[in-house]
Amino acid sequence: MSTCPIDTSVIRPIRFVAGCCQMLDQRLLPVEEVWHAYTTYEEVAEAISTMVVRGAPAIGVAAAIGAWFGARDIEAETSHDFYSQFEAVCDVLAATRPTAVNLCWALERMKHFAYSNLDRSVVELKIGLEYEALAITQEDEICNQKMGQYGEPLLADGARVLTHCNAGALATAAYGTALGVIRAAVAAGKKISVIADETRPFLQGARLTAWELMKDKIPVTLICDNMAGYLMSQGEIDCVIVGADRIAANGDVANKIGTYMVAVLAKAHKIPFYVAAPISTIDLSVKDGSEIPIEERSDREITHIKDVQLAPEGIKVRNPAFDVTPHDLVTAIITEKGVVQGDYRAELQKIVAQR
Amino acid sequence: MSTCPIDTSVIRPIRFVAGCCQMLDQRLLPVEEVWHAYTTYEEVAEAISTMVVRGAPAIGVAAAIGAWFGARDIEAETSHDFYSQFEAVCDVLAATRPTAVNLCWALERMKHFAYSNLDRSVVELKIGLEYEALAITQEDEICNQKMGQYGEPLLADGARVLTHCNAGALATAAYGTALGVIRAAVAAGKKISVIADETRPFLQGARLTAWELMKDKIPVTLICDNMAGYLMSQGEIDCVIVGADRIAANGDVANKIGTYMVAVLAKAHKIPFYVAAPISTIDLSVKDGSEIPIEERSDREITHIKDVQLAPEGIKVRNPAFDVTPHDLVTAIITEKGVVQGDYRAELQKIVAQR
Repeated sequence: MSTCPIDTSVIRPIRFVAGCCQMLDQRLLPVEEVWHAYTTYEEVAEAISTMVVRGAPAIGVAAAIGAWFGARDIEAETSHDFYSQFEAVCDVLAATRPTAVNLCWALERMKHFAYSNLDRSVVELKIGLEYEALAITQEDEICNQKMGQYGEPLLADGARVLTHCNAGALATAAYGTALGVIRAAVAAGKKISVIADETRPFLQGARLTAWELMKDKIPVTLICDNMAGYLMSQGEIDCVIVGADRIAANGDVANKIGTYMVAVLAKAHKIPFYVAAPISTIDLSVKDGSEIPIEERSDREITHIKDVQLAPEGIKVRNPAFDVTPHDLVTAIITEKGVVQGDYRAELQKIVAQR
Repeated sequence: MSTCPIDTSVIRPIRFVAGCCQMLDQRLLPVEEVWHAYTTYEEVAEAISTMVVRGAPAIGVAAAIGAWFGARDIEAETSHDFYSQFEAVCDVLAATRPTAVNLCWALERMKHFAYSNLDRSVVELKIGLEYEALAITQEDEICNQKMGQYGEPLLADGARVLTHCNAGALATAAYGTALGVIRAAVAAGKKISVIADETRPFLQGARLTAWELMKDKIPVTLICDNMAGYLMSQGEIDCVIVGADRIAANGDVANKIGTYMVAVLAKAHKIPFYVAAPISTIDLSVKDGSEIPIEERSDREITHIKDVQLAPEGIKVRNPAFDVTPHDLVTAIITEKGVVQGDYRAELQKIVAQR
């Protein structure tokens, strides 16, 4: 593991330096900007499960890179032998986080690439998988910029936009999904201000959203999660925009715990509630939100902040990391292929099929 | 200031030892149980504003004790001179926290006592005010037990009850308001389990509600504030019960920030939302919730936990300490004189007038 200064122009949580992959340790932001270097797929799997890297698109990118590293280190005579070892690598990476579908999507794409090229030599397969991982990384950034173009007309000049968790550059290869739409609105000359939920327990809003928006000089105000309702009741929020970890075929959205609460509040206050997510987040194999597995994480995330004890010793804790927002609370879903609304079941199917 | 072991039988955040008043430092719970001793009204005012003691009924009790200490130390020849100095003492105490009306209620009661007895000597007035402060303390505990008796039939055997903030023994002289109702249900032989919102930023749920329920062996599960909606959507919460800092004439309820959010969620899930509060919390002089002042507290409560920095340096923060839940989201208000529901404007007036 090495530490080196951060690139200050464009925020990218994953970068390539001298043949190895570096990830910004998002657990240490905003106080420290520490980059770790990874060279094996096991290290990348560990980085995903311990949340050095987080955010559905970013863990998709990280998983692809992990798969590439795993592929590179496989010793096999035949491409079929290579493929069976490669599947085992992907299984390890797939088991790191259960909720975000982009992880599986990226691994499926890597496996599909390998499977479709089994007539190639092992060396060629390895090179191809490297190209595929880099393509996944680059495409994610392009997706986000397109999402921004499609989504920014939804934000009025002067809009005060609530966001939950971090669906920003740090959650993607670059630019962000929800924050990408905000960046695009700002780039279009609109005056946008952001209200960021701190997002307990991991504090992605306080630590990451606040950090990256301040870095980009976009006005941001931090609140605790339980203050969003109050600000809405005072007329201080014009719309909500969040990311997604998985979108079911009917438009139900799994996202960071607390998203559902924000959506219920938005509906009660007649405030539009937008979801920005790449097509890779849409999982048509899942009928509705009830089929999406919800990761429960450790008690300690809630009972402690660093070494500070917040709750009594031995307290029972629930720590679901995600929740599901039913599609009827979602005003529109912003993707890189356009904005989806209305009959989500039909429209999502159409947009996924679209070339 | 002195430190001494806590009384382990009944939880009382304020106690009298050897002529001085001791308060349990609620900022240090649950990790440390430290008692501070106070002998002047300025010290008590400081303890209220820095939240050594908190919770609407408890700060009413603390203010009464502060007023008594202030009265005791007044040097005056005539009772009229005494009274004008006593008013100044009460003004200092009244300025410590703006939202909870019990503070003003207790001070008004102390002033009313003095004013009604201006024919007495200064010495007699001082003795009378000591009795009055002790009566306010004792009555609060009795109120809470009555509230428990009236409220507990609302909780079914086996109920899983969500609470927000701490409306427990620690927020009162003893027993608690919302948690008093839960204690009464448990005493009546019902199996009750509590889900406690941690209640950012001050974490009264994680630190205080969890602590006192564990001490009383009432099953409690801690969640982050943003998880309540998820648990409701999973059918894991049967009702909500919270305290109040001020109730307007129309039944609008000011309480800890986030209460409104919980009430909106409860309504969306058709879950009863109960408020337990003594009559002293009802402020008929305030027409509706919009007239209740909402205290904004310091940024640091959100940006730091102890010395751990959670957000970027210089981030803009909003920190409203309370919000207002409109009466149409309140299923019933439980008081020491009975349960109020329906036409709050008429019923609250009636119950306040009732002897």
